[in-house]
Amino acid sequence: MSETITLAQQLIQIDSITPEDKGCQHMIADYLSALGFNTEHMRFADVDNIWSRKGLDSPCLVFAGHTDVVPTGPADAWTHPPFSAHIDGDIMYGRGTADMKSSIACFMVATKRFVKDHPDHKGSIAYLITSDEEGPAINGTVKVVEALERRNEKFEYCLVGEPSSSHKLADSIKNGRRGSLSGKLTVKGIQGHIAYPELADNPIHNLAPALEQLVQVQWDHGNEYFPPTSFQVSNINGGTGATNVIPGDVEVLFNFRFSTEHSPESLQESVHAILDHHKLEYDLQWNLSGLPFITPADGELIQAVQQASENVLGYKPQLSTGGGTSDGRFIAPTGAQVIELGPINATIHKIDEQVSVADLEKLTDIYYQTLVNLLT
Amino acid sequence: MSETITLAQQLIQIDSITPEDKGCQHMIADYLSALGFNTEHMRFADVDNIWSRKGLDSPCLVFAGHTDVVPTGPADAWTHPPFSAHIDGDIMYGRGTADMKSSIACFMVATKRFVKDHPDHKGSIAYLITSDEEGPAINGTVKVVEALERRNEKFEYCLVGEPSSSHKLADSIKNGRRGSLSGKLTVKGIQGHIAYPELADNPIHNLAPALEQLVQVQWDHGNEYFPPTSFQVSNINGGTGATNVIPGDVEVLFNFRFSTEHSPESLQESVHAILDHHKLEYDLQWNLSGLPFITPADGELIQAVQQASENVLGYKPQLSTGGGTSDGRFIAPTGAQVIELGPINATIHKIDEQVSVADLEKLTDIYYQTLVNLLT
Repeated sequence: MSETITLAQQLIQIDSITPEDKGCQHMIADYLSALGFNTEHMRFADVDNIWSRKGLDSPCLVFAGHTDVVPTGPADAWTHPPFSAHIDGDIMYGRGTADMKSSIACFMVATKRFVKDHPDHKGSIAYLITSDEEGPAINGTVKVVEALERRNEKFEYCLVGEPSSSHKLADSIKNGRRGSLSGKLTVKGIQGHIAYPELADNPIHNLAPALEQLVQVQWDHGNEYFPPTSFQVSNINGGTGATNVIPGDVEVLFNFRFSTEHSPESLQESVHAILDHHKLEYDLQWNLSGLPFITPADGELIQAVQQASENVLGYKPQLSTGGGTSDGRFIAPTGAQVIELGPINATIHKIDEQVSVADLEKLTDIYYQTLVNLLT
Repeated sequence: MSETITLAQQLIQIDSITPEDKGCQHMIADYLSALGFNTEHMRFADVDNIWSRKGLDSPCLVFAGHTDVVPTGPADAWTHPPFSAHIDGDIMYGRGTADMKSSIACFMVATKRFVKDHPDHKGSIAYLITSDEEGPAINGTVKVVEALERRNEKFEYCLVGEPSSSHKLADSIKNGRRGSLSGKLTVKGIQGHIAYPELADNPIHNLAPALEQLVQVQWDHGNEYFPPTSFQVSNINGGTGATNVIPGDVEVLFNFRFSTEHSPESLQESVHAILDHHKLEYDLQWNLSGLPFITPADGELIQAVQQASENVLGYKPQLSTGGGTSDGRFIAPTGAQVIELGPINATIHKIDEQVSVADLEKLTDIYYQTLVNLLT
């Protein structure tokens, strides 16, 4: 059993469901301490975080990740107990195998090997590990980044170990994310009896043409880095339950995933223009959960990771800005180059979350090679 | 205190919430028995009904109504206890004052006076009283009508005592009703993560253009007797509650109130055509709760009632087919002329339901004059 696998199993066997860390970060800190890292434990409210760094020189490569995992769902639905980290052939089962304790283990072993092979490497290495990436993400990465910015501590590169791969290891690197803007729209009418529609004002009817327009809009065509901005309604609810009553209002929850072709303000203006055009009486509350960000393909970090991947695997990862949000959105505003590279994400958050043991060895090699490319 | 008011109070003081009758019908039967009526108690399941008739000759005028009332809502919100039938000045308060125990009392007193004044009147008089008009309406009027049809018992005229008046007594007679056709539409899609809309199929988005079209259609322009057919959505519900999930389906409950310019089949065809045009995958369940019916203005019943009203009040009621359904829909298919004439409906089903005491005296006179016009 390789050290990567042993370390991954030790982390996975700790049932650190958000926001619990349950000692994972102390285990990581102890391991890194032996390699010359200095660790700060930064607890904010109920969330454990560590910032662990070796050296102060530039450039600094940060490995970012999280020790918390999502709940298991019904444990007896799993082929093997969700915190057993049981290995069957090439497959290791368990909550956190793909998202994302294994990535942490890979980076730890890559770091150990790199420090041993290149004791006089240039720059510095750091770890930013939180225990609330899967939760509200209020007291985790964002707070650590704020603390670093306050004391003007800089880093140039950040490799987030999130499971970025789709079908085979490192087929995809996330080099940015779309923005995420949500709206809660309440269209108002006048409640009444369905037999007397002239005495009521049906908000569902008033909404219909505006909704039709909203779902038809081509918001933009995306660009070199981003797919087109998408608008999706997640929930629509109107009605009293009674079949003979016209309701007084209808509520629509929607979300934009938006490219850098749009700003939150331009989207908000467009939505309000459509609603106003249809003369709706409405209330609309906005929530911006992340601005779009991008790490350009010609930066040193992507070059280093792509070359490392090609060396180890024989193919170059594709760049992508698709998928959901991650803590990368909190790190990108510092100006650092940020990418995500980790295991295959097909089983994350599901029953029987799993990872290929062979992939973890290769991922360790890719991380090692990335350190070599950037810091020697 | 007049006999009409005393009788109305006695009926209103019985808390006969649907489907309870609690002795109202026995009280009515006893009263009518003294006038020479023969009463059949027809209980179907948990619903009491009476069919009470004096004479067998044609023409037969049926007074139709119900002894059940809707719940009171919070009793302490009432100015006077809801089953007190308290009179304050000209106003009698209580559940059932307008809908429709007072009408029954008016007809009882009108009948008594008519039988006394015209002992040798032609034709016959009957009462069809149920205790589930406000409920599912399965074991009430519809079952009594079926029983009469089975034994080939006929009647020519039916005066339903429902509160038909809007602003002043007898300003409006209902001489028909629109049909009522309901639909439960489920539009299907594919559930998925909101960040990956290309892997999902948003049923709310698919529905939007079809819904927009459905609410814009001018179904017909009505006709001499009917206002235009109306389409109203009462409920729309889609979404898992989570804001990052595209739901797998969305449900829409809608209702047509339709004129004789349409049939249930023609409406169903139109809706299916719209849904199919938009290539929706859907399930649609239909429920027909009433066909439209009309009693022509030149029939003897309307002539008699309009003349009676004009005699008593000095003005002629307008004919109307607006508003909700009533048990008239079950009686009209027998071929009888059916109209509704009763008190002002402004407070029905509400807190502080009430009726004008003076109106009840006039309503008694109108009913009496109608009996005179038709049966002498």
